[in-house]
Amino acid sequence: MWDRHHLISTEGADADQARRLLSLAHEDQFAHDALAGRAVANLFFEDSTRTRVSFTLAAQRLGASVVDLSSAGSSISKGETLIDTAWTLESMGVDALVVRAGQSGACGLIADHVGIPVINAGDGTHQHPTQALTDALNIGRSHGRTDSWDFSGLSVAIVGDVVSSRVARSNVGLLTALGARVTLVGPPMMCPGGLATLGCKVSSDLDDLVEQMDVIMTLRIQFERGGGARLGSRREYHDQYGLTLERAERMRDGAIVMHPGPMNREVEIAGGVADGPRSVIRDQVAGGVPVRKAALQLAILAR
Amino acid sequence: MWDRHHLISTEGADADQARRLLSLAHEDQFAHDALAGRAVANLFFEDSTRTRVSFTLAAQRLGASVVDLSSAGSSISKGETLIDTAWTLESMGVDALVVRAGQSGACGLIADHVGIPVINAGDGTHQHPTQALTDALNIGRSHGRTDSWDFSGLSVAIVGDVVSSRVARSNVGLLTALGARVTLVGPPMMCPGGLATLGCKVSSDLDDLVEQMDVIMTLRIQFERGGGARLGSRREYHDQYGLTLERAERMRDGAIVMHPGPMNREVEIAGGVADGPRSVIRDQVAGGVPVRKAALQLAILAR
Amino acid sequence: MWDRHHLISTEGADADQARRLLSLAHEDQFAHDALAGRAVANLFFEDSTRTRVSFTLAAQRLGASVVDLSSAGSSISKGETLIDTAWTLESMGVDALVVRAGQSGACGLIADHVGIPVINAGDGTHQHPTQALTDALNIGRSHGRTDSWDFSGLSVAIVGDVVSSRVARSNVGLLTALGARVTLVGPPMMCPGGLATLGCKVSSDLDDLVEQMDVIMTLRIQFERGGGARLGSRREYHDQYGLTLERAERMRDGAIVMHPGPMNREVEIAGGVADGPRSVIRDQVAGGVPVRKAALQLAILAR
Repeated sequence: MWDRHHLISTEGADADQARRLLSLAHEDQFAHDALAGRAVANLFFEDSTRTRVSFTLAAQRLGASVVDLSSAGSSISKGETLIDTAWTLESMGVDALVVRAGQSGACGLIADHVGIPVINAGDGTHQHPTQALTDALNIGRSHGRTDSWDFSGLSVAIVGDVVSSRVARSNVGLLTALGARVTLVGPPMMCPGGLATLGCKVSSDLDDLVEQMDVIMTLRIQFERGGGARLGSRREYHDQYGLTLERAERMRDGAIVMHPGPMNREVEIAGGVADGPRSVIRDQVAGGVPVRKAALQLAILAR
Repeated sequence: MWDRHHLISTEGADADQARRLLSLAHEDQFAHDALAGRAVANLFFEDSTRTRVSFTLAAQRLGASVVDLSSAGSSISKGETLIDTAWTLESMGVDALVVRAGQSGACGLIADHVGIPVINAGDGTHQHPTQALTDALNIGRSHGRTDSWDFSGLSVAIVGDVVSSRVARSNVGLLTALGARVTLVGPPMMCPGGLATLGCKVSSDLDDLVEQMDVIMTLRIQFERGGGARLGSRREYHDQYGLTLERAERMRDGAIVMHPGPMNREVEIAGGVADGPRSVIRDQVAGGVPVRKAALQLAILAR
Repeated sequence: MWDRHHLISTEGADADQARRLLSLAHEDQFAHDALAGRAVANLFFEDSTRTRVSFTLAAQRLGASVVDLSSAGSSISKGETLIDTAWTLESMGVDALVVRAGQSGACGLIADHVGIPVINAGDGTHQHPTQALTDALNIGRSHGRTDSWDFSGLSVAIVGDVVSSRVARSNVGLLTALGARVTLVGPPMMCPGGLATLGCKVSSDLDDLVEQMDVIMTLRIQFERGGGARLGSRREYHDQYGLTLERAERMRDGAIVMHPGPMNREVEIAGGVADGPRSVIRDQVAGGVPVRKAALQLAILAR
């Protein structure tokens, strides 16, 4: 999971590393000056409220200062490359880069060219590791695995436009490393059989699975990225792959419902399910902050 | 004025609550770590230099950290609702929301859905309570009412495009609660007689009033919101409703001139009046910071 | 150099003042709470990653808080003038303004209207004094002049689109004040003979000079400002005025290569030279932070 001091991808994640980070986040006993005098740069080439604010709050609560760079206000408009921008920030003494980029692989590319830690905050359709760690935090908490962070015996379905989802890809890597069985579910255009090479099952029939799952994670249809083009009608999608009230009722005792947000209510998930008793969606948002505190502290101090 | 721990509107304001906040702001003896470890989010769906910076400085001087969200960089562009964004910030552990929105009523709507304090930093044509509090601070200071914050016997005219002004609406609510007599003045399209239901007088003749007022507050013509359409020519407006040098000279001894800024010089106010001896416009800007410190401290700590 | 407490221009710079600032930056022994409780506003009417982030990091490391204003999020869109915006920030209690503007002379204009220090972070084609100070810091360090900051006997060439470069103009003022001999080099349209009135030599033949220089500073072709129009082809420019590997090899022992960044590799400078042994380009970026710490501390405290 850690590639030197960088957190770029959960592919082939080391379970011990992941468990150490999850324990740290779960306990949430950070020194409020752990990163005093340190500076974290948010280098966001794509918009993101949740992720940027979550990293910002995490850094500030550890005593670090934060500088924000977005593509609009950056040298990017003067033709500078991603790498030059990152290298400039390193030269100025920034202690870690949190990078969100539109191109898959951009964060790894930057990490190869700077000496300071790079944390991937989402790169194209590739990876979003702190989201997967947040999801794992909530799964462990909901299913009583906060001692071992061993997810053996847990069945997780990830439902929706899997092929274009970095959240799905990051969760498959992390959750399988922790011992869970993961099934990807969606219409074949969004969830082709070839995804099984990631080390999980693939299905196109949600109803068939609902009763066996401990966790159903619904993915956001990314209309702003053209996700609607593979969708047919919203109504039809909701009927076939939406997490409806009826489906939620058929789930196991203790099974939970997740969504990485922001939600399209009544498309991938019914509003009543999102706000219902199985939902840990709000906890997912809350859990992002301690996970990012742990990621920043480990990246900057514990290398 | 406070609705639970929210500061949304001055309509039907409680004078005691207002006086407590004004005393706190006037004394300006805040602990520099009163809000240490706390986080304030500026959720600005409309641009505003003055208000955003004023709240930011206020929060920082109390030791809080600040995160900025604007519509451009937010999940709004992904179709998330106002409420979901606010709810996300609450889930992340933000301690208070400062909200500026284009829609009247948006701040109250958000306040109804989150558990953390919401401070209205201007919503549509509805309310802008911290501006009115800042204006009251300056009126009290200029007219020697800083012991009682009782404005009995003071006459205040608010002049201009009243019907579309949240500043006017907030001032009417607050100043009448504190005991002042308020007269709204403007051409009938900008200042219709029906506004008298707010609890004030309405007039279309500025010259008739100039000599009886202790305070004349000129409003900004909001050209960027189409305020010019109701204006006729700038010259004509200035002649009839502008606070000219000639009118300022006819004002009472000790009477003051106010403007919430940013000003259109030579439209609603002559440059010479804005920079002249009766003007407290600069004090209005300065007073915004302690007022917002008081508002944030009361919202976060004293509920 | 200092005009009252403002840092606007290096024209006619006082060598003693410059040396004091350079010593302070070179030692880099600032108290981490030197500016605790102070607020610095970045008022950037033009985009700039490097400069804004560099000033932000500098201010934060001295314990100051920072507020960012850009033209997009500012009252500028409501028709407020530069001066009114600056005056508003002063009224709110901001302790210093760092101003980047498109119009030459804008920073000096603002400085004439506010009581708090204004630091010019680049105004049109006029001046960018902290960049020149950073360059001087690196020249002094590379050529062993950190005791005296006396540049007598050093020859510096500044190569490229000089006429539209505030970096060149600031360097000429500062470096000649410190005792260096400066030669401006470029095609006549970019580097007209009249620039000699600045107190330096002017040449159109780079090859003629390469072997006599202790410092060659290449300037960025500012394509985003129409710099390409005076360029002919990139290839041709690179052949005649680019700092090629072949030219770099002909330079004196110990001579250094500089570029203010962001670079157009293979236009004004070969990538191999930028990354090669003579290059101090990375140090230039690094040096910007202590120079800006010194500038902010002197402006705010030592006036």
